[in-house]
Amino acid sequence: MPPADSTDMDADKAQRYRSRMQRQKAVVDAAIVRADKSKGLLLVLTGNGKGKSSSAFGMVARALGHGMRVGVAQFIKGRSDTGEEAFFTQQKNIVWHVLGEGFTWDTQDLARDRETARRGWSVVQTMLRDPSIDLLILDELTYPLKFGWLEISEVLSDLQNRPAMQHVVITGRAAPDTLCGAADTVTEMRDIKHAFQAGIQAQTGIDF
Amino acid sequence: MPPADSTDMDADKAQRYRSRMQRQKAVVDAAIVRADKSKGLLLVLTGNGKGKSSSAFGMVARALGHGMRVGVAQFIKGRSDTGEEAFFTQQKNIVWHVLGEGFTWDTQDLARDRETARRGWSVVQTMLRDPSIDLLILDELTYPLKFGWLEISEVLSDLQNRPAMQHVVITGRAAPDTLCGAADTVTEMRDIKHAFQAGIQAQTGIDF
Repeated sequence: MPPADSTDMDADKAQRYRSRMQRQKAVVDAAIVRADKSKGLLLVLTGNGKGKSSSAFGMVARALGHGMRVGVAQFIKGRSDTGEEAFFTQQKNIVWHVLGEGFTWDTQDLARDRETARRGWSVVQTMLRDPSIDLLILDELTYPLKFGWLEISEVLSDLQNRPAMQHVVITGRAAPDTLCGAADTVTEMRDIKHAFQAGIQAQTGIDF
Repeated sequence: MPPADSTDMDADKAQRYRSRMQRQKAVVDAAIVRADKSKGLLLVLTGNGKGKSSSAFGMVARALGHGMRVGVAQFIKGRSDTGEEAFFTQQKNIVWHVLGEGFTWDTQDLARDRETARRGWSVVQTMLRDPSIDLLILDELTYPLKFGWLEISEVLSDLQNRPAMQHVVITGRAAPDTLCGAADTVTEMRDIKHAFQAGIQAQTGIDF
């Protein structure tokens, strides 16, 4: 129990808290009323920080939880033992395509990397024409764009012509400006601090 | 087929590509060799942008894919129809706790919010002492800290005393500096652009 002479102060504090939260609620409610449109979103998750692909996979879980159908295309296959692939390929309502061969500095062959990316994009094109796919993840797509394996104009045109309610999430560092311009939501994951810089290796369940 | 006189240029381009990727590979390989430590990480995902909670749920999927055990504590319960809850509560190896009552501007009662948060933290404390939990998500924990419902010193002390290999992911806007200081990895999700600002409502499978 607080001493008796603090009761007024506590009551005052509780009242200020209530007023502050009432104002906050009014602001939030008004914003929610204003946001009344629905559409298939194009989301770009970029930047150097941790959380781009994992955020995309969190949206996969959300969508599956609502009974939606999901397509995933991974353009860079850094390793073959990822938890996300092991987990999601066991689930219903999801198709999972590994379209890349590894980081480009592993192949070191431009013609081969281009050919792999182009073959991958034709798989994506099929999903971008399929209205039964509610959410499509294009994981690490920014790298094929950055290295010139895919034409940004063709990618943008295919994205624009997709089904009206299909959501697409694109991840990877250094997303091109034209891609960000076409997106509904763009988040930059900024690396404030990263365990890797402190000599800690990629951790199972966190980084892959 | 390119015209014959472009062959030398193409060969030159391919060679420069190969050299660039060889240098990149050397840098990446050296960094991987340096990063040889393993530990339970503390990750903080903060900022105003989209992707904090979804990234945490992506790590849940990764961890489950590796057969790890996961605990989730949600401190703010904005709505009762989330895809992540519907999806993950159907999976094995996961415990899911909803510890909040909704956004604080809905209750507008400081004493009640404090009591709810303190009761929630005692549930978290049990998981922070349980070495069989490999990954623990404390979703939207920054709000109880920001509003003073929980003591940051107690929270930090409990985090520091957790099992050595347990990973903890904390999400929410405005993470306190002391929490970021204690973390191994901190990402700021920066809102470059958000569909909500263009009048688009929260989308099923993307935002919840």
